[in-house]
Amino acid sequence: MKRVWVNGIETDELSVYDRAFSYGDGLFETIRVERGEAQLLNAHLQRLKLGLERLRFPAQAFDLVLSDLEQLPLKGDSVLKLVITRGQGERGYALPQQANITRVMMLAPLSDFSSQAENGVHACVCEYQMALNPALAQIKHLNRLEQVMARSEWQGTDQFAEGLVTDREGYLVEGTMSNLFWVKDSVVYTPSLDRCGVKGVMRDHLIQLIQLQGYELSEGLYKPDVLGCADELFICNSLIEVWPVVSVTASEDRVQGYPIGAVTKKLQQLLQQEKHH
Amino acid sequence: MKRVWVNGIETDELSVYDRAFSYGDGLFETIRVERGEAQLLNAHLQRLKLGLERLRFPAQAFDLVLSDLEQLPLKGDSVLKLVITRGQGERGYALPQQANITRVMMLAPLSDFSSQAENGVHACVCEYQMALNPALAQIKHLNRLEQVMARSEWQGTDQFAEGLVTDREGYLVEGTMSNLFWVKDSVVYTPSLDRCGVKGVMRDHLIQLIQLQGYELSEGLYKPDVLGCADELFICNSLIEVWPVVSVTASEDRVQGYPIGAVTKKLQQLLQQEKHH
Repeated sequence: MKRVWVNGIETDELSVYDRAFSYGDGLFETIRVERGEAQLLNAHLQRLKLGLERLRFPAQAFDLVLSDLEQLPLKGDSVLKLVITRGQGERGYALPQQANITRVMMLAPLSDFSSQAENGVHACVCEYQMALNPALAQIKHLNRLEQVMARSEWQGTDQFAEGLVTDREGYLVEGTMSNLFWVKDSVVYTPSLDRCGVKGVMRDHLIQLIQLQGYELSEGLYKPDVLGCADELFICNSLIEVWPVVSVTASEDRVQGYPIGAVTKKLQQLLQQEKHH
Repeated sequence: MKRVWVNGIETDELSVYDRAFSYGDGLFETIRVERGEAQLLNAHLQRLKLGLERLRFPAQAFDLVLSDLEQLPLKGDSVLKLVITRGQGERGYALPQQANITRVMMLAPLSDFSSQAENGVHACVCEYQMALNPALAQIKHLNRLEQVMARSEWQGTDQFAEGLVTDREGYLVEGTMSNLFWVKDSVVYTPSLDRCGVKGVMRDHLIQLIQLQGYELSEGLYKPDVLGCADELFICNSLIEVWPVVSVTASEDRVQGYPIGAVTKKLQQLLQQEKHH
């Protein structure tokens, strides 16, 4: 069942004058709720806080979110999406003189991803290249046309669960809705996100787990070619957690298969264990 | 007086599930209405059409806009803002399977800009550098955080009417809400917008007028240094039309003044003449 609150009041409507609608002037977080508990909540809140600072939101915005969250009736398994916007404004890009924050809290059913987690998914490499934009990199802001454009490339087919996206210089960044890892000779690799991309909460969490397990982790700029000799590949986000990638299609005649590897399985297992402690 | 219609029905509320709210997945046009007549309407519609195509909107979106426009009670002087979004969608970036367009038509009072048009305005050079993003350049999409960030640099002061923005390689692009022209030795210059920026309807219209007047027009990549030796400078958009820029502040100790020049005045005059024919 879906439920939505806008500034603490249950409604699914919002003013057309909201700056999220006009300019995408805001941030969001998508949080997995299990047995009534928001998973990795502190990490989500920390990223939100970073975003609020970068976008020069008034300081009280974060406290308003915390207080809204306390009122939320979280129970069972669901998806909690928070959207924080700079509220209503007059026409024009200037920040409103009066701090005026809109908080939207949305609850929706959590899908069952166990089949993808177990059997892996197919991915493609998108043609769309992400713009380099360090000022807006890492944070989860509401300007997501790049993701929409990249995702539209395999619209209408169920062939791929995800598309891997490169930046304007041809370096791997992430998936349209996930972050990317691969393993080669027991070293775990993931693209650096200093210039574009979203710094996923699950990505950061996996990096901790990877390092705790004693694997070497290498974060940097890599071209898609490096995936050609990877031993295993996986994508992650807070909702799907970890999905093995069993094939990457770069073009019709370049399809590379991957086994579901030991690191992928280990991380999936560690995530499950965390929940039962 | 403000009035708003969503899909032809007068209301100023909108679903929180609209993709403009979630992703900025849509386009807008801001149109000057004088004596009930939408100015440069065809040019606005052509740019909108280009945007709809680029963002892979369903073909009927444009026709829906046209039919909404026919119903609008345009009278007197006002600002007409059209917002076209990809409508409501399920969670995720994939385009909705059912074409499902939201059209928002907003009427608001038109401000009197005669003082700025006559006396000119002060501008600064923003520190924010725009990302290079040819796929989203030129069109007037709803992902406007870059403009919000640049505009916030002189928040809280009335010192500047506009900020000039460069791209990541340091080339001039535009103002946060306007396009930029300058004149040197009777040649008119304006930044090329192939890699980022909004291709303003008024910009295109002025280019035509400039060429009809027999001036040479040069569109290209220019660093802000070139403004140092400009004879005159002006900014434009559909609402403000043409504003002379009488000073550009690059930093505290680099302020350059400009006269209100002959080309600027000629273009203002031509725009006025067009309206009385």
